[in-house]
Amino acid sequence: MSQFTDALAEDARAVTETLDRLLSTEDSAEARLTEAMRYATLNGGKRVRPFLVMSSARLFSVAESCALRVAAAVEMVHCYSLVHDDLPAMDDDELRRGQPTCHVRFDEATAILAGDALLTKAFQVLADPDTHPDPAVRSDLVAELAHAAGDEGMVAGQMLDLMAEDATLGMSEVTRLQRLKTGMLIGFACESGAILGKAPEAARHALRAYVHDLGLAFQIVDDLLDVEGDEKEVGKKTGKDQAAGKATFVSLLGRDRARAQADMLAGQAAQHLELFAEKANHLRELAQFVVKRRA
Amino acid sequence: MSQFTDALAEDARAVTETLDRLLSTEDSAEARLTEAMRYATLNGGKRVRPFLVMSSARLFSVAESCALRVAAAVEMVHCYSLVHDDLPAMDDDELRRGQPTCHVRFDEATAILAGDALLTKAFQVLADPDTHPDPAVRSDLVAELAHAAGDEGMVAGQMLDLMAEDATLGMSEVTRLQRLKTGMLIGFACESGAILGKAPEAARHALRAYVHDLGLAFQIVDDLLDVEGDEKEVGKKTGKDQAAGKATFVSLLGRDRARAQADMLAGQAAQHLELFAEKANHLRELAQFVVKRRA
Repeated sequence: MSQFTDALAEDARAVTETLDRLLSTEDSAEARLTEAMRYATLNGGKRVRPFLVMSSARLFSVAESCALRVAAAVEMVHCYSLVHDDLPAMDDDELRRGQPTCHVRFDEATAILAGDALLTKAFQVLADPDTHPDPAVRSDLVAELAHAAGDEGMVAGQMLDLMAEDATLGMSEVTRLQRLKTGMLIGFACESGAILGKAPEAARHALRAYVHDLGLAFQIVDDLLDVEGDEKEVGKKTGKDQAAGKATFVSLLGRDRARAQADMLAGQAAQHLELFAEKANHLRELAQFVVKRRA
Repeated sequence: MSQFTDALAEDARAVTETLDRLLSTEDSAEARLTEAMRYATLNGGKRVRPFLVMSSARLFSVAESCALRVAAAVEMVHCYSLVHDDLPAMDDDELRRGQPTCHVRFDEATAILAGDALLTKAFQVLADPDTHPDPAVRSDLVAELAHAAGDEGMVAGQMLDLMAEDATLGMSEVTRLQRLKTGMLIGFACESGAILGKAPEAARHALRAYVHDLGLAFQIVDDLLDVEGDEKEVGKKTGKDQAAGKATFVSLLGRDRARAQADMLAGQAAQHLELFAEKANHLRELAQFVVKRRA
């Protein structure tokens, strides 16, 4: 795994550098906005979504500089969703990645605006010719990211998640909720490399199958960490789902079956990648990393 | 003016119909999200920005169906900004267009998510091949809208506006604030017709000059209505800027000079349109409409 974790760390460093460049501070009166945007994105994080972008882009020999911009855009969307999700009117979280959340460090209004600006910036980055010389590719990236992040994807999942506190959800409903809330953005991250590389449909299909299983495994482990994880190690408040009475994979399956299910999905995810032979080794190892992580 | 007001009403109707179609409700568990998105966009409004899109698109004989989609996207961005701006952590408004604001009618969390989803949907609409067959045009529209709406535009203006309560701004700072907060989105609306129509640079330049003056006039009148307007007629709380101690064009210039300045700008705006001869009559009349409106 050490070559893999090196690669993960190296891509995390590169995308952080890209985010740092794209979110540069100017000496303007509204600098507070950029500060909050930087605070929300440059505070570490595993950068799993950027790694998916980079790894899938490498399957199709996409230029590193193009892939990094897409990776940064995906991370902006992920970070905006965390900033808004942490707001008092939403999940009301004060800790994220071991640090005060954006609205605690700044204030609620600034956090709302920083989230809005990060979401907007993500589309700006994708539509910029620097991201890909072919406008059809850029336009596709925008359409697919919006589909994954909006009312047919992530935001719908967040809405369901908010409503889940008053409802008793079954397995299929929790699966759909999580597919929308986290699965679709992870799905875009993985498929974006194929869009950038104008990959044939068979390759895109394989990546979609892989990331479908990976996304579910990822979420089951998130639920397990909420129950089993150490608050310090996880970097955010744990035990929240249970306290809120939310149905999760763990509450529905129990810890042992949830763990077994995550392991099964990680193995299954890897099997979808045969087409790419050893070029997809990082993606295979990512599936194992996702289920073995402690945070 | 009656032909003009008919045209304004007809475009408002057509863009409302387009919004209605783009934001269709499905019988899904998260239907509450779509309901809130529809509530925020289908509640009337003058539809000035859509009219700018439609009028500029007509200068270059752009297909009506394409222009309507761009008009709808711009209105989604405008409406999302109102929803977030009205939140308790921001301007804390309970009334908008004579109706309860989105977070009052639904709740804060739903309003935050509905705003996020509207912003995302706007980019999705622009990137869709139905908006223009040429992906370079779609990509340009996305890039320009993001530039106008994000941390180099509208959101930066909202940040400045929030900070303005603690600061004493002069004329140039208020002008910059308003240029960012409202001017840039109005600017995009006006230029989008030229992007759709692949208009030559001279035409784009003329439109930019027109909308620069129009945007300022629009904002000065907004400030005047906040002081002079009747709450019922304006459809939102008035007297707010003064209560918050905010510097506005009216507090800086006084009512008479502000009114004279708005009239001057409206006249000047129209003069930039010579190039288009009588084809630009609607845009000329819009400048007069903007300064004469009572809401």
